[in-house]
Amino acid sequence: MAELGIGLIGTGFMGKTHALAWRGARAVMGGDLPEARLELLCDTPRDKADTMARQFGFARATDDWRALVRDPRVDVVSITTPNGLHHEMACAALKAGKHVWCEKPMALTLAEAEEMAEVARAAGTMTMVGYNYIRNPAFRHAQKLIAEGRIGRVVHVRGWVDEDYQADPDLPWTWRARLAEAGLGALGDLGCHLVSLMVGLCGPIQSLVADAQIIHETRPLPDGTGRGAIENEDTATALLRFASGAHGSLSTSRSAWGRKNKLDWEVHGTKGMICFAQERMNELQIYLNEGPKAEQGFRTVLSSPDHPPFGAFVPAPGHQLGFGDLKTIEAAELMAAIRDGVQAYPSMQDALGFERVIHAIADSARRDCARITL
Amino acid sequence: MAELGIGLIGTGFMGKTHALAWRGARAVMGGDLPEARLELLCDTPRDKADTMARQFGFARATDDWRALVRDPRVDVVSITTPNGLHHEMACAALKAGKHVWCEKPMALTLAEAEEMAEVARAAGTMTMVGYNYIRNPAFRHAQKLIAEGRIGRVVHVRGWVDEDYQADPDLPWTWRARLAEAGLGALGDLGCHLVSLMVGLCGPIQSLVADAQIIHETRPLPDGTGRGAIENEDTATALLRFASGAHGSLSTSRSAWGRKNKLDWEVHGTKGMICFAQERMNELQIYLNEGPKAEQGFRTVLSSPDHPPFGAFVPAPGHQLGFGDLKTIEAAELMAAIRDGVQAYPSMQDALGFERVIHAIADSARRDCARITL
Amino acid sequence: MAELGIGLIGTGFMGKTHALAWRGARAVMGGDLPEARLELLCDTPRDKADTMARQFGFARATDDWRALVRDPRVDVVSITTPNGLHHEMACAALKAGKHVWCEKPMALTLAEAEEMAEVARAAGTMTMVGYNYIRNPAFRHAQKLIAEGRIGRVVHVRGWVDEDYQADPDLPWTWRARLAEAGLGALGDLGCHLVSLMVGLCGPIQSLVADAQIIHETRPLPDGTGRGAIENEDTATALLRFASGAHGSLSTSRSAWGRKNKLDWEVHGTKGMICFAQERMNELQIYLNEGPKAEQGFRTVLSSPDHPPFGAFVPAPGHQLGFGDLKTIEAAELMAAIRDGVQAYPSMQDALGFERVIHAIADSARRDCARITL
Amino acid sequence: MAELGIGLIGTGFMGKTHALAWRGARAVMGGDLPEARLELLCDTPRDKADTMARQFGFARATDDWRALVRDPRVDVVSITTPNGLHHEMACAALKAGKHVWCEKPMALTLAEAEEMAEVARAAGTMTMVGYNYIRNPAFRHAQKLIAEGRIGRVVHVRGWVDEDYQADPDLPWTWRARLAEAGLGALGDLGCHLVSLMVGLCGPIQSLVADAQIIHETRPLPDGTGRGAIENEDTATALLRFASGAHGSLSTSRSAWGRKNKLDWEVHGTKGMICFAQERMNELQIYLNEGPKAEQGFRTVLSSPDHPPFGAFVPAPGHQLGFGDLKTIEAAELMAAIRDGVQAYPSMQDALGFERVIHAIADSARRDCARITL
Repeated sequence: MAELGIGLIGTGFMGKTHALAWRGARAVMGGDLPEARLELLCDTPRDKADTMARQFGFARATDDWRALVRDPRVDVVSITTPNGLHHEMACAALKAGKHVWCEKPMALTLAEAEEMAEVARAAGTMTMVGYNYIRNPAFRHAQKLIAEGRIGRVVHVRGWVDEDYQADPDLPWTWRARLAEAGLGALGDLGCHLVSLMVGLCGPIQSLVADAQIIHETRPLPDGTGRGAIENEDTATALLRFASGAHGSLSTSRSAWGRKNKLDWEVHGTKGMICFAQERMNELQIYLNEGPKAEQGFRTVLSSPDHPPFGAFVPAPGHQLGFGDLKTIEAAELMAAIRDGVQAYPSMQDALGFERVIHAIADSARRDCARITL
Repeated sequence: MAELGIGLIGTGFMGKTHALAWRGARAVMGGDLPEARLELLCDTPRDKADTMARQFGFARATDDWRALVRDPRVDVVSITTPNGLHHEMACAALKAGKHVWCEKPMALTLAEAEEMAEVARAAGTMTMVGYNYIRNPAFRHAQKLIAEGRIGRVVHVRGWVDEDYQADPDLPWTWRARLAEAGLGALGDLGCHLVSLMVGLCGPIQSLVADAQIIHETRPLPDGTGRGAIENEDTATALLRFASGAHGSLSTSRSAWGRKNKLDWEVHGTKGMICFAQERMNELQIYLNEGPKAEQGFRTVLSSPDHPPFGAFVPAPGHQLGFGDLKTIEAAELMAAIRDGVQAYPSMQDALGFERVIHAIADSARRDCARITL
Repeated sequence: MAELGIGLIGTGFMGKTHALAWRGARAVMGGDLPEARLELLCDTPRDKADTMARQFGFARATDDWRALVRDPRVDVVSITTPNGLHHEMACAALKAGKHVWCEKPMALTLAEAEEMAEVARAAGTMTMVGYNYIRNPAFRHAQKLIAEGRIGRVVHVRGWVDEDYQADPDLPWTWRARLAEAGLGALGDLGCHLVSLMVGLCGPIQSLVADAQIIHETRPLPDGTGRGAIENEDTATALLRFASGAHGSLSTSRSAWGRKNKLDWEVHGTKGMICFAQERMNELQIYLNEGPKAEQGFRTVLSSPDHPPFGAFVPAPGHQLGFGDLKTIEAAELMAAIRDGVQAYPSMQDALGFERVIHAIADSARRDCARITL
Repeated sequence: MAELGIGLIGTGFMGKTHALAWRGARAVMGGDLPEARLELLCDTPRDKADTMARQFGFARATDDWRALVRDPRVDVVSITTPNGLHHEMACAALKAGKHVWCEKPMALTLAEAEEMAEVARAAGTMTMVGYNYIRNPAFRHAQKLIAEGRIGRVVHVRGWVDEDYQADPDLPWTWRARLAEAGLGALGDLGCHLVSLMVGLCGPIQSLVADAQIIHETRPLPDGTGRGAIENEDTATALLRFASGAHGSLSTSRSAWGRKNKLDWEVHGTKGMICFAQERMNELQIYLNEGPKAEQGFRTVLSSPDHPPFGAFVPAPGHQLGFGDLKTIEAAELMAAIRDGVQAYPSMQDALGFERVIHAIADSARRDCARITL
């Protein structure tokens, strides 16, 4: 396969990162990847689509996503629209025989996500859900160290994912506060990323008990007519038990002042510990019970070409990767999957597992911390 | 009251910190405190008591703690023996009319702690339980900022307390692994300190749901005859609801490689956040939603004379306090309480509240994460 | 100008970052930039040029850089070859009427750099030298704060730039150790970047006094026939006086174990201080003598859309930029310069100023710390 | 020698730390040290001396330092008065046959310091100058690692010592600004501490070249009659060459906003690097070129009982030492020296070496960065 025709739906935060990733993936990761032909871009209104197609370098533009998913010159569809639209778009693209790169969370409800995974299975094309943080070379190195037994048996794990975009009590009410339109709150926006990391480090979660909280119960309506209710959670915290026997916990907040992209975890093993903080995404903290006690300490390991695929971006250690680079790796892995006909990770089936966890957390919280088995 | 006769039971880790605190408190905190006359030290065997009395500067030594608590020249009894001995010694000292400074946790069981608090109430003397971390000027400054509303309404709080003294799977079995002899595990050693901090920041805990874990189920018996069972928890994690309406969580581990004295917390408010890490005990991290967005960030505030009673130790900012200095503050506050006849914080009644929480956590964990109301 | 024909010479570390920057600049920074048409790529041997052209998406390949700089469909030439080749290539490209983006340092000797600046002046085309670190939104925000007087009068500045690529005593001798072939050592590789930052913060350097050091005087010859002499400096340190009256110092080492990309500075003002560490390139440390003393501290400000042009990459704070993104900004600024016919910064004339400083440092060191006036 | 009679002159910042150190040293470090009998305290006016003697636990008070240094029950004299008084007091005490613990810097001028060292040599009693930072267990561990060759040959070293007590341009003029009354500025207050650390790490300094700067040339006179000139340096920076062949630099500022007790250094070796920051005085940063490259990084080693004499204070790692504890170690080492009749480090002769360096720096700066050989 010499080239792939790319169709992109959406040009916001994620839409732009997809566009840049498609532009960069092959140049970064190597010429044995197919060439990404930027074929068709969809946004509304049409003139915005035209403008962004010019900026991003797409050959054509449309305001009709249905046309895009059916377009014969489009091989892969990037879906970066609001979460409530993913389900319909992805199913349509899959049914049209397209490969799909869909942003997370897959859908507003678990039922929709399950249907998407089923449609993907039936379609047999390649799918990828946008869990970009698991692409980080630092994260992959942590996985490698764990797999090699460097920290012994993993016994405990903790994770946190916080931002502050809903911390200000004076922010106006928006549709994002409604369960029916936006689905989960912090769990859907942030929590599912953390689940992807924790599962990547410790394997599947077997059961959990969780609590959640709405901090700002109402917010001023934008039209000044009063206050609207906030229906989805600002924070959620869960006690986790993993299939491996490890225990752990996770916590998320969208109202945590000062946290811009906190997505941190620590894995406790019987021989050592590994910690990570996303706001310093090019660093891994590693403690090993090795060597003289007087010299033991957490090591700040800077990402480097010793942590693939870092070296594909820069051959020099300490010259950092950025957020966008994670999306470039993601695109490249989907391209390789399509080239090889071998499903990449996480497919929609894989990602469904992450999304089951966030819905289980919400469910447990709704039922006063009842134990939910996954 | 010109002077206080001090009786000290125990000369280990905590015994030494008490001795140093008694020696330093008045010199540091000012001459309006009574003078601490180092009267009688108890340890076994007797020659060890003699040696340590000489080193610490006590006038007399004994190997009979009952004699010490009855000694007419002893006004205050410092109890720094293993936890299982606190109950009997403290009750005897209180019944003999002494003031008591007792290390934490108060007792192995909640019933014993309750009895101690009751005996203290009846005795009417001054009591103090060794929750030293709440003495930190940095912590007190956090409390002050919260009380002044600088971070708005407190809505969420998280805490962790970890060490690694039980992380090594090859450590031998000791009596500390037995519930009957040692009581709780990580919760008793570490968790109760964290509770004292979280309650100090957010007020009383109303209910909780918790899980716990024994990581190393058996350890080699020291006599080489096989392996002994570990009966108390290596880790525990709880979902907390505070009386104020705030939610939170806490987690503790005694098997967390690399953590030497992690005792960290973060308080989320509607206008800002404050974070603290005990391993950097002279720093507070403060984020306030104030001023231009482009200059907002967590501030690393170094402890200084602007954070009383730091200046009593050193008048220069950035010249750190150490762990022992916290005990000196503690001793001084007990001395002031005795001088003034006004109970200091935390008395045995106050500390009972902290210990109720750790027992509730253990109880919830034992009952598969049942909700416990305090 | 609708589009620019790009010619790239070299496909190593810097060659790849140029290729990626050309691919990404317009998509990131906006459609009012010209489109970069990837026209011609030069490397040797020819098949490597072909391979890399395919990977990077260039239309044509050549192994003849002279053909490239003369090619009528090439408007801009990216020069990313070893430093000793810059002079000849840049002069040829400029004389052929091309715009030039040349990596730093401009040349091995100051005389060559001066000639390049003169040829550029005569050519009248746009030039840009690859001082990428001054593109960092965090750095620009520091410049803005200084310009606004937020830290008062700048009185003192310190900088360091260290790596460890020559720290290992067992590394073999290479041509890079020869003055004639490689020019300066740490000063040329690293020091000139630091100069670009310090001048950007404090203005021109007026005079200096410096020392330098060769740590490993010889290294094993690769052919096993003995040891070859190291002729250029491993470290250099200078005492600086700025035209503004500020004092300062800078130090560089290529043999500093553990430093992967240390490029740190601190600017002392009469009202505050700003610090930066390149290994955490998305953070600025800002201390202002404002507000209550008890809450003063260095603030860790994470790069965000409040620090242009960060938001062109990601609209969310705390989602980091990487090293490559700095080159993308650099390319975009050169494209804008060409579009507008207004020279961008730093042109070859500007960059000559930086390179004068590193040669002055080497000169002072050679003359036992004689004062050199610039 | 069962006990030592202590005479303390001065009760300010340093006076208090001496008092606390004398009270704590034997209790901390062990009963084989002599007992410190707190005999006589001198301050003016007399009632202040009385008050402080009561607070600190001294038996008697005086306002006549000459009486104190002659007092037959005084064996050791602690001198903690303003620097300009050290010379006269120390010489008198030494001539009266007393041991002397004198704060740094020894004197306002090098000539006076030389005389003190000579008088001390003639007296034959034990002397100690208050270079407390070299007592830090973390620093001593660094020295041990260097001595064992763990970082290879030391090739480069950098140090900084900054505070901000003279950063505010609006502070009034005081006598401390006069060379005749206060001697050196930042070099005397701060720089000499840094020299003690750098010499401790790298051995003697052979020659140097330095620059200095007065940032605030005048300050408002306290009586409102105008502005007074500042005669001593706010900052100084030096290029160092060590006898070992290592190069280095040091810089000091008393006008560095945000720096409360920055006293940082980094030692570059051929096999590794060690770094330290006083504001986090219980941490050492160690990088060793050992083990897999992918796991190399700076280790944050927390002070612990593996770093003597930390364990004498607390047997638990991560339970920090504070500034005062350094003085306790210092007192204990002087007590041991007196007990054993073996001069401790740094005696007045040793300290003279440090003070020669700061005067050489001032001298070089005065002579426009002339090279000074020590």
